[in-house]
Amino acid sequence: MITLASDFGSPYPAAMKGVILQRSDARLVDVSHEFPRQDVRAAGFWLREILPYFPPAVHLVVVDPGVGTDRAAVVIEAGEHALVGPDNGVLLPAARALGDEEGLTVFEISDDDAASSTFHGRDVFAPAAAAVHDARAENDPLAELDELTQLDEYVDLGLPDPEVRDDEVVGEVLVVDGFGNVITNVPGYAIEGYEQVDVNGQTIPVGETFAAVPVGQWLATVGSHGNVELDVNQGRGDDAFGLEAGDTVRIQL
Amino acid sequence: MITLASDFGSPYPAAMKGVILQRSDARLVDVSHEFPRQDVRAAGFWLREILPYFPPAVHLVVVDPGVGTDRAAVVIEAGEHALVGPDNGVLLPAARALGDEEGLTVFEISDDDAASSTFHGRDVFAPAAAAVHDARAENDPLAELDELTQLDEYVDLGLPDPEVRDDEVVGEVLVVDGFGNVITNVPGYAIEGYEQVDVNGQTIPVGETFAAVPVGQWLATVGSHGNVELDVNQGRGDDAFGLEAGDTVRIQL
Amino acid sequence: MITLASDFGSPYPAAMKGVILQRSDARLVDVSHEFPRQDVRAAGFWLREILPYFPPAVHLVVVDPGVGTDRAAVVIEAGEHALVGPDNGVLLPAARALGDEEGLTVFEISDDDAASSTFHGRDVFAPAAAAVHDARAENDPLAELDELTQLDEYVDLGLPDPEVRDDEVVGEVLVVDGFGNVITNVPGYAIEGYEQVDVNGQTIPVGETFAAVPVGQWLATVGSHGNVELDVNQGRGDDAFGLEAGDTVRIQL
Repeated sequence: MITLASDFGSPYPAAMKGVILQRSDARLVDVSHEFPRQDVRAAGFWLREILPYFPPAVHLVVVDPGVGTDRAAVVIEAGEHALVGPDNGVLLPAARALGDEEGLTVFEISDDDAASSTFHGRDVFAPAAAAVHDARAENDPLAELDELTQLDEYVDLGLPDPEVRDDEVVGEVLVVDGFGNVITNVPGYAIEGYEQVDVNGQTIPVGETFAAVPVGQWLATVGSHGNVELDVNQGRGDDAFGLEAGDTVRIQL
Repeated sequence: MITLASDFGSPYPAAMKGVILQRSDARLVDVSHEFPRQDVRAAGFWLREILPYFPPAVHLVVVDPGVGTDRAAVVIEAGEHALVGPDNGVLLPAARALGDEEGLTVFEISDDDAASSTFHGRDVFAPAAAAVHDARAENDPLAELDELTQLDEYVDLGLPDPEVRDDEVVGEVLVVDGFGNVITNVPGYAIEGYEQVDVNGQTIPVGETFAAVPVGQWLATVGSHGNVELDVNQGRGDDAFGLEAGDTVRIQL
Repeated sequence: MITLASDFGSPYPAAMKGVILQRSDARLVDVSHEFPRQDVRAAGFWLREILPYFPPAVHLVVVDPGVGTDRAAVVIEAGEHALVGPDNGVLLPAARALGDEEGLTVFEISDDDAASSTFHGRDVFAPAAAAVHDARAENDPLAELDELTQLDEYVDLGLPDPEVRDDEVVGEVLVVDGFGNVITNVPGYAIEGYEQVDVNGQTIPVGETFAAVPVGQWLATVGSHGNVELDVNQGRGDDAFGLEAGDTVRIQL
C-alpha cells in the first residue's frame, strides 16, 4: 500500500499515480492533496495525526517549497512504515509517531538526472515510493536499493511547544481545518476540569463536544487529536475568534 | 466494497480509510466528501440519487451535526446493501431506494468507550463499516455481530413534497450542484409538454437539455435525477435565479 | 485500469464509478474532476501532459459543454490505450501523445435510448468505458463491440501555436494551475539561455526553478510540461501578472 499526500490540489497528483502504476501494483490511497500550500508544519501535524491509523505502508509526501534547491530527497524507515519526501522535516512528526525515535533510519535518494526542476513529486519521489514499496514486498532491505544511501543528518521539524504557566497557557494555532475549527498546540489536559476559560481575553465555555453548547455558540473543546480546539457549534471558529495558523493563543484558566 | 461519503472535505476522510484498512481488505470507493456542511437533507438527496448505481456494498455516511449528543449510530440493511451512519435520517432516502420499505432492518451500534467525542466517523462508523463488510463477506448475519442490536425506532427523513395545484406547483430547492444547477423537489412530469413556465415570476423556456437554448440563456429542464432543475446553459443557475437550498420555487404553468 | 477525468467536481463522478463497478472489476484511478468547467482546451492540455505517465488503460473523459446536442460519443484507440468521451476534440491531444497519429482508430458509440439528456457521463460514457475495458481484458477487438461503429471524421482539437519571431514570441495562456502558475503555449527552448526576458512589457528573470529567485519574486521558468510558465516563488503568478487562460503573452527576448 502506498498513501499519497501533497499540497498539489488537482491534477498533478494523477501524474504521480501514473508513475507509480507503471512500476508497481501497489494499492494507492489518498491521504490529502489539499494540505495548506507550502506549509510544512501544517502537513507535518496532519500526517502525525492521520498516518498512525493506517496499516504498514509507504507514505509518499510532497509539500516542498524548496523544490529545485539542493535540499535532499529522503526515505525514512519508521517501525513497519516507510515515508518518502523532501528533507525539510515534513516527515518527522509522523515518523516519530510511527516508529521509535531511535528506530528511524533515513536514506537519501540519489539524483535522477532526468528529473524536472519543478516536479520532483513525479520525477523523484513517486519512482522512489514505488521502488521502496516493491522492495518491502520482497522483504529486501532498503539499504540494498541502488538509489538509496544512508544519511546521518537530516532536517528535523518539531511542532512548537506551548508555554504552560500557573494560570495561563500561551500557545499558537497549528492549523485551521475545513470546518473552521482552530486547532492549537495546547494539550487538552490544560483545560480539563474547567467550565470556562479566557481565550485572548474572551470568556468561553469548555465543552466535551460541539453539541455541549447551543448552535452558534463559541467553545473550547479537546479535539480528536488531543489538543485544544476553538470552535463554534455548527459554525466556523476561525471567523469567530479571528485566528489563523501561526497566531498566538493565550488561554487564562 | 465500502463506499465513503461525508461533509468532511480533507483530510479527515483519510483517517476513516486507515481505520478500515487496518481491519479489512475491502475495496474503498469515495462517493463524496464535499456534501454541504451538516446538511442532512442534501446528503440524503445525493445518496438516494447515487448509491443505486453501485453494486451491492456497504455505504459509510458521515454527515453528523449531532456528533457528541446521544443520537444513536446505526446500520441499515437495505436489499443487498448496508448503510452505516448516524441516526439522523441521512441514510433513509437511499435505504428506501436500495431496498423495500418493509425490507429495511435497522441496528444500533453499541458505544465504544474509547471513542472521541468529536470524530465518530473514525472511532465508531469506520470500525462498524469494516465489521459489517467482513461479516457480509463471510455470509454471517449482521444480527450476530456483538456490537449491533436491532432497533425498532429510528429517525426518518423525508425529502419535502411540493404542493401541486391546477396551474401551479410550489416546491423548494433541495440542493445546488457544483455547476450551479438549482435542483428542486418538483417532479419532472409537472413541466412536461410545456414550452415555457413562470418561475418565481420570471418566464423561462422549458428545454430537454441545456443545449436547447443559447449559451447564457436561462431554462427549466428535467435533470438526470428526474426533478425540475433551473439552469443556465454554460452558466450558473443559482446566481441567475438568486436561489439556494431551502428557498421556495413557485412554478406557474 | 480505467482512469476518470471530468469537470464535474463532486458528487457526480461517483455515479459514473457505480455504473462501471456494476459491470466491471476494473481498477479505477481518478485523474481529476476539477478541470476548468467546460473548458475543452484546458482539459485537452492536462490530459496530454498526464495520461502518458500511465500504464496501458482506458481513459474516461467527460468535459462536455455540448451534452444533449447531436455531438457524437467516441472511443479512440491510441497505441496501447483507449480513450472514451465526447467528440469535441478533448481526447485528441492525449490520443496523439499516446499513439501514432496514423495509429488512431475512432469509433462512435451508438445511442442508448435510456440515456438522460444531461448526464451522458453516467448513461453513455461510463458503460462504454466498462465495455471497452472488459473487451480489452479479453483481447477482443473493439470493432466487434455491438455499440461501436468505426468513424472516419471526428472533431479535432489543436492547442494553439505561438508566433515565433526573431526577438519576440507571441503566445497565449493555456491554463493556470492550482498554485497560480501561468502555463503558456510557448515552448521552453524559446527562453533558454536568456537571463531575463520582457513579458507583456515587464522585465523578469529567467530561472531554472522557482527557488532561483527570492520568495515573492516573479520569474519565467520552463515547467515540468516543457512550456514557459510565469510564476512567483511561493506566490501566485496569475495574480502577479494579471493573466488568465486565453490571454496573450508577448515575450521579448
